[in-house]
Amino acid sequence: MSGGLDSATVLYLAQSMGYNCLCLIFDYGQRHRKELRAARSIAESASVEYEIIKIAFPQRGSSLLDKRLKVVSNVGKDILIPPTYVPGRNIVFLSYALSFAEIHKAQAIFIGAHAHDYSGYPDCRPDFFRAFRNMVRLGTKTGVEGKPVHILAPLLHKNKAQIIRIGKRLNVPFELTWSCYRGGRSPCRVCDSCHYRAKGFAGAKLRDPLIHDR
Amino acid sequence: MSGGLDSATVLYLAQSMGYNCLCLIFDYGQRHRKELRAARSIAESASVEYEIIKIAFPQRGSSLLDKRLKVVSNVGKDILIPPTYVPGRNIVFLSYALSFAEIHKAQAIFIGAHAHDYSGYPDCRPDFFRAFRNMVRLGTKTGVEGKPVHILAPLLHKNKAQIIRIGKRLNVPFELTWSCYRGGRSPCRVCDSCHYRAKGFAGAKLRDPLIHDR
Repeated sequence: MSGGLDSATVLYLAQSMGYNCLCLIFDYGQRHRKELRAARSIAESASVEYEIIKIAFPQRGSSLLDKRLKVVSNVGKDILIPPTYVPGRNIVFLSYALSFAEIHKAQAIFIGAHAHDYSGYPDCRPDFFRAFRNMVRLGTKTGVEGKPVHILAPLLHKNKAQIIRIGKRLNVPFELTWSCYRGGRSPCRVCDSCHYRAKGFAGAKLRDPLIHDR
Repeated sequence: MSGGLDSATVLYLAQSMGYNCLCLIFDYGQRHRKELRAARSIAESASVEYEIIKIAFPQRGSSLLDKRLKVVSNVGKDILIPPTYVPGRNIVFLSYALSFAEIHKAQAIFIGAHAHDYSGYPDCRPDFFRAFRNMVRLGTKTGVEGKPVHILAPLLHKNKAQIIRIGKRLNVPFELTWSCYRGGRSPCRVCDSCHYRAKGFAGAKLRDPLIHDR
């Protein structure tokens, strides 16, 4: 769980499906540290357990980790993969979750990835999830025994407005979520994450509780 | 790199193939902490850089991590997966390595896994590696760009005696390696890892420098 509204929505969705959840919150040196606090608050609001896991990603190669790089807007630019891409991020997160899931005998791992707005991230696409599931089936004890941990990405084909509508119906506390990559006092409203969030709320015809316009 | 003779051999093999190596050494709470020191010594003997990476695996579900469980011998027992199996271990290790590899623009990840003696570990089998490679091809930036990081397991189809023969030819400092799961002062000569090591040296008709028989 990241602290953003996608993973918050996925948590509430999993709960509504009857799952007893344990949230994994990854502290991987992201510059928007604020999302860690947001993630904890969301877990508490849902009354579920969480674990904070420190991961030593090399602090290079991504503008989300490397403080020497600026977070710039990439909206509308003709680039395949945005500079905020963190090499192997979802792969590492899912691998960890897999280890936890096998130990806790969990049935499923939920992840808030979606292929819509961020089609540039290779580890957010349907092909990747299919390949990861296949690897789980072949490379884990439970997989080999015919009961692989399910990897569920229920928002994969939703856009931000649809996700916000789903979250609204589930009473997700959007005021506790944090999306801005810059992690300042209030959302920068410029970075890609702010851009898609604003577009999503506009599309869902809802007000973002984090934005206070005069 | 674990500090065992398989990964030491793989390091020397990769060097002999002309690769400029960076060793990743995982501190994942293994009870045989001694292998961490061994891994460092081997990296130093090969004059390559290394990074020690702490991983917070849940300390349960494996006799290799859980101090309440005993390390027992499973040789000859009719079990599918030994209790020393650490859920998701190689998947987590390879995922980390993948992240490092993309950032360092490395061409390949070498791993000392082999399917021969430890056929019980699902994450040591050819099927798993094939599935992992496919996932790398689809879920990473370099993969999508057509230049996926290679996942190389050159010992996959070798048995321990063959590995020791390869290592011997490459002048691997076997005296620096550590295999015993129990991590005592000298090898216990009972655990699975000691068993296969002894069998390997016997098969290769070589003396294990760690074993001092009177």
